[in-house]
Amino acid sequence: MASNQPDPSPELDELYRGFEKELLVPLWTEIGDLMPASPSPAMRPHVWRWQTLLPLAEKAGELVPVGRGGERRAIALANPGLGGAPYATPTLWAAIQYLGPGENAPEHRHTQNAFRFVVEGEGVWTVVNGDPVAMRRGDFLLTPGWHFHGHHNTSREPMAWIDGLDIPFVHYTGSAFFEFGPDQVSSTETPDRSRAERLWGHPGLRPVSQPAPAVSSPLAAYRWEHTDAALSDQLALEDEHHPGVVEPGHAAVRFTNPATGGDVMPTIRAEFHRLRAGVETAPRREVGSSVWQVFEGAGTVRVGDAEWAVDHGDLFVVPSWAELTLAAGTQLDLFRFSDTPVFERLHADRVQVGGQQR
Amino acid sequence: MASNQPDPSPELDELYRGFEKELLVPLWTEIGDLMPASPSPAMRPHVWRWQTLLPLAEKAGELVPVGRGGERRAIALANPGLGGAPYATPTLWAAIQYLGPGENAPEHRHTQNAFRFVVEGEGVWTVVNGDPVAMRRGDFLLTPGWHFHGHHNTSREPMAWIDGLDIPFVHYTGSAFFEFGPDQVSSTETPDRSRAERLWGHPGLRPVSQPAPAVSSPLAAYRWEHTDAALSDQLALEDEHHPGVVEPGHAAVRFTNPATGGDVMPTIRAEFHRLRAGVETAPRREVGSSVWQVFEGAGTVRVGDAEWAVDHGDLFVVPSWAELTLAAGTQLDLFRFSDTPVFERLHADRVQVGGQQR
Amino acid sequence: MASNQPDPSPELDELYRGFEKELLVPLWTEIGDLMPASPSPAMRPHVWRWQTLLPLAEKAGELVPVGRGGERRAIALANPGLGGAPYATPTLWAAIQYLGPGENAPEHRHTQNAFRFVVEGEGVWTVVNGDPVAMRRGDFLLTPGWHFHGHHNTSREPMAWIDGLDIPFVHYTGSAFFEFGPDQVSSTETPDRSRAERLWGHPGLRPVSQPAPAVSSPLAAYRWEHTDAALSDQLALEDEHHPGVVEPGHAAVRFTNPATGGDVMPTIRAEFHRLRAGVETAPRREVGSSVWQVFEGAGTVRVGDAEWAVDHGDLFVVPSWAELTLAAGTQLDLFRFSDTPVFERLHADRVQVGGQQR
Amino acid sequence: MASNQPDPSPELDELYRGFEKELLVPLWTEIGDLMPASPSPAMRPHVWRWQTLLPLAEKAGELVPVGRGGERRAIALANPGLGGAPYATPTLWAAIQYLGPGENAPEHRHTQNAFRFVVEGEGVWTVVNGDPVAMRRGDFLLTPGWHFHGHHNTSREPMAWIDGLDIPFVHYTGSAFFEFGPDQVSSTETPDRSRAERLWGHPGLRPVSQPAPAVSSPLAAYRWEHTDAALSDQLALEDEHHPGVVEPGHAAVRFTNPATGGDVMPTIRAEFHRLRAGVETAPRREVGSSVWQVFEGAGTVRVGDAEWAVDHGDLFVVPSWAELTLAAGTQLDLFRFSDTPVFERLHADRVQVGGQQR
Repeated sequence: MASNQPDPSPELDELYRGFEKELLVPLWTEIGDLMPASPSPAMRPHVWRWQTLLPLAEKAGELVPVGRGGERRAIALANPGLGGAPYATPTLWAAIQYLGPGENAPEHRHTQNAFRFVVEGEGVWTVVNGDPVAMRRGDFLLTPGWHFHGHHNTSREPMAWIDGLDIPFVHYTGSAFFEFGPDQVSSTETPDRSRAERLWGHPGLRPVSQPAPAVSSPLAAYRWEHTDAALSDQLALEDEHHPGVVEPGHAAVRFTNPATGGDVMPTIRAEFHRLRAGVETAPRREVGSSVWQVFEGAGTVRVGDAEWAVDHGDLFVVPSWAELTLAAGTQLDLFRFSDTPVFERLHADRVQVGGQQR
Repeated sequence: MASNQPDPSPELDELYRGFEKELLVPLWTEIGDLMPASPSPAMRPHVWRWQTLLPLAEKAGELVPVGRGGERRAIALANPGLGGAPYATPTLWAAIQYLGPGENAPEHRHTQNAFRFVVEGEGVWTVVNGDPVAMRRGDFLLTPGWHFHGHHNTSREPMAWIDGLDIPFVHYTGSAFFEFGPDQVSSTETPDRSRAERLWGHPGLRPVSQPAPAVSSPLAAYRWEHTDAALSDQLALEDEHHPGVVEPGHAAVRFTNPATGGDVMPTIRAEFHRLRAGVETAPRREVGSSVWQVFEGAGTVRVGDAEWAVDHGDLFVVPSWAELTLAAGTQLDLFRFSDTPVFERLHADRVQVGGQQR
Repeated sequence: MASNQPDPSPELDELYRGFEKELLVPLWTEIGDLMPASPSPAMRPHVWRWQTLLPLAEKAGELVPVGRGGERRAIALANPGLGGAPYATPTLWAAIQYLGPGENAPEHRHTQNAFRFVVEGEGVWTVVNGDPVAMRRGDFLLTPGWHFHGHHNTSREPMAWIDGLDIPFVHYTGSAFFEFGPDQVSSTETPDRSRAERLWGHPGLRPVSQPAPAVSSPLAAYRWEHTDAALSDQLALEDEHHPGVVEPGHAAVRFTNPATGGDVMPTIRAEFHRLRAGVETAPRREVGSSVWQVFEGAGTVRVGDAEWAVDHGDLFVVPSWAELTLAAGTQLDLFRFSDTPVFERLHADRVQVGGQQR
Repeated sequence: MASNQPDPSPELDELYRGFEKELLVPLWTEIGDLMPASPSPAMRPHVWRWQTLLPLAEKAGELVPVGRGGERRAIALANPGLGGAPYATPTLWAAIQYLGPGENAPEHRHTQNAFRFVVEGEGVWTVVNGDPVAMRRGDFLLTPGWHFHGHHNTSREPMAWIDGLDIPFVHYTGSAFFEFGPDQVSSTETPDRSRAERLWGHPGLRPVSQPAPAVSSPLAAYRWEHTDAALSDQLALEDEHHPGVVEPGHAAVRFTNPATGGDVMPTIRAEFHRLRAGVETAPRREVGSSVWQVFEGAGTVRVGDAEWAVDHGDLFVVPSWAELTLAAGTQLDLFRFSDTPVFERLHADRVQVGGQQR
């Protein structure tokens, strides 16, 4: 696009040196990179294998203590296109976190929005603003911005899970605040259900006594039993020839703030997808990046020119506007999170399915 | 307030005759009624007894057929202050509806928003836009404006329930539209759960495939088991010294649109309240009128100067800005609906609790 | 619609007497009136003539003092279909108010939303929350709910204008509150522009220091010079074949809250329309009622079956869903207000133009 | 913060090499940088001098043609903290654009939001979606995302102005789309007022015929005469002891979308500030970055540890959470734009004035 450049000349060289000296850059030499015809992000599609991640996390469990200062034994995916920064995508952080038996991760709070997703295991409680939240297989657990939180493992087994945050976005835009809380988690209770669930976890019901939080969801935990049932219901409705699935053989639910119906946190969308064995999704592009984790089953993923066989626990990332296709070998359950709310709130969202604008 | 009137005189008489002839009315003679210091509605507090209503409905079941033309065997509460109109309050309709074994109520749709609440019994399915919705004890069931709906009783027993609508408001403001649907209900299926519940009835989850309806809730049924559990959870949280109840011994949930977190329909708020035995609520006034039905238990209700002992199934109405106090003899479960969303959307809502503005 | 009634019988008579005794009304005898196929309001189309109104207001100026108690020398239009109540429509109040030289109307505030429109004359300042607002020909002036306000005539001439309020709606729904303010207006200044205009009256600009009021417009005065220019601009754009007019030869602007872009007050929409000489508008129906006043020019108005020649200052009312056509003899300028925001906020609005749903 | 690190050991080294090989980064070594106690952006405060910029732009006018490919003769500010990228701040682009007599800049559109601000000169029309918009001294002119636009200079004089865009933010988040339009601007008309102004530029009035655009403002031009009058009004109100100014001697207006009252574009806030001679503002920090240009007058600016004397046309940038103080030597008029809407829409905004949270 930027092919039509002025002819080289000593005066032009001098002008360009003038620009450089005065901290100026001309548009006409940069416009092709700055303003491409469609998004061409630096991040690259990539897959990280659970069978690689988990042993490294276990090894870190042996060698690296958890405590004040380092704060968390979390190991982040570093996208190969992003220069070594610990960013899964330009906006999203994804890490495996590991906590051994009896260990504690001290309390702190930050403006970054965070969640946990549990691909396997149990035994840890995350304490969010004083409310102990059990973490179990398949659960999706929230720590919205500026909520104090710590974790403690009360079991005899270590536990690993996935953390998702908007660290790169917050870092890039310069909106990070951080405060330490108590060195020990503020509650060592181990209730089956959090107080948040007892108040906000009944379908279509809200507690009259509580304010309706518009910023982020008051529901600290989204339990696997509900997610699983919702996905099963959609596939059963399809069997009965009723609407429900996204496309043939493809069920999907979005985690939402029950007080608004919107996304759980201002910058992060989270969803769960289930494909029947043998199903291949229509190719889909959208503005914004996403991180997926295989929860159960196996299949094949294509992202742009990349293609991978994926299995339990594998994590892969999808750049903005890259075409994504999922093909299920067995029934395939996937967790996904993305930065879509940023684009929707700024009216910059676009989606294409099967080559058609939606 | 309108005491300071001009002195009578022949000229004044002539002026007033001139006004009358020209269809004019002076403000200065009417301002006291038109613009009172605080709301002074024409409607009156009143109670209707379930043990009176139900036999009349049963008798109507013998004498009055259900079918096209009359449409529904519904018998409406007529507030004694509203001149014989079938209005429970100036804005709200409340009726007992009765359907015998094997009977059908034909399909129609209207802009009036409607719901059913089941104080006892079961065996009827209400079919809402083609989706059969079981009606069972304690359930709250929606028929938002302009949704086709009919009912059929598949059991060997008659069933009676409460209808709530915004008929008076719609009539008054001139926004009523009505269309007939099929004479027979469009589905005679009798599923345990409606398709709406299978899509929208999972806590904090929304189906990615479905649009998020902003006007009224897509969740056709709010089941008693969830309402009951939510109320129990609030009282248990109170026992553990955690927030949850509205005031000591008083739990309350609001039925909401899971796609917005707001009220189920544009003109109607619906809630369920539970009081521990022996609890008396703080006196409360609010702008807007409401209808209450005792679901279980017994107690005493004071509305302005009126006081009644109330029991299972009794219905009572609360005028705008009348002071309401509830006192529970036994544990007392109450269903309530009101026109509060009208005032909130028009920024005319006010609430006073224990004499203090909220 | 309610033709299919049960056969008369002694038992049925007894049942109906039982209903009456217990303050109950069956739906099946009332449904035709309560739930018509389309809105059939009790209010009727009607016109009030300025040449009749003004002399009666002048006569009231002689005979009726203005002061505390009666509060205002306002004479309201009483729709012939509304049983003598001082209501122009079921929801809207419209009155001519008259203030003689040197007279004062004492301060008060109320939850009813109010405005003034000046069809001719000047010399009065309305003081709204302490801010003196000049009233001049063509101006549209706001007194949103719960703002203190009084008026004073500083000129040597009497002045008459039109008041519009939502008194009937507030009365019907039971949301009226009222408080007296000072007996004398709180400011006797007579500035050309109000402070509100100096802060909020610059196009597309808001004062950084001021909160953005969502409930009602902070702009106390909409001046004729701006309204006139906006209408002229639309007709000039039409001459240049650019979009702007509502339909050929028909320009229209809506008065808006600059802090939201929405209607000036929660219950009242206000607009100004200009028709070129010879233009006839497409027939239009909409949910909700409206009041129109001819500002300048002459023409013919059809509302349902009624038809009137109208001239400067004449006021006419349009019931919900009645078909309205305007035909301009000369260039015709009309002010209009309606209850449309009530329906839009409750998702009950519908419009038909030329027989087509919009 | 990240001081508490595990002791070095061969095993730890091996673990860290494993991380690197697998594209992983531990949180505990990075947390201090990633999650600082308060924003510590890479961008630096900096000032660019108008008397430097303008000659360089003039020289580019001689040497660099304007046309398809390079698209614009725009020269961007490159923040010294951002590695040579043409970014004034992490999210905002600011450039001087220069168009000689008779020159044309071809039409294109892009998802990046853009505006022009004119610090001096006139003679260029920017054509936005076919609507020619005159550019004159003090005007603020919009080209919201995905609007076709080109420029043509119809005068005998060159013209230079400031462009502001969200290029860095759109680049970073991967949401850029771009399309070429006609090589020649689609209209060579030179009207005094744009059609947009004739429709939307009347205070508090909206055209009934036009949709209300929620995404960005339909008002293409904000004229200096209105901005100047609004600022003067605020200072005059201060003289009369009425509210209006932001703080003593400091008037400010925000450019808004008249259809919503909100910011002109989803990612960019624009304001104009006027300080009386001798006034010094309270120190202010806020989340998000901004670019300021001195329009008239002279004064002193402090940003964090930097301090500069500034004069007509000088541009300076303020990092997120850096403390800003302005001191006016003469009356000082400043134009400002920022990325604040991004943070407000994502609930990440914070402001501190005089050390106090607002």
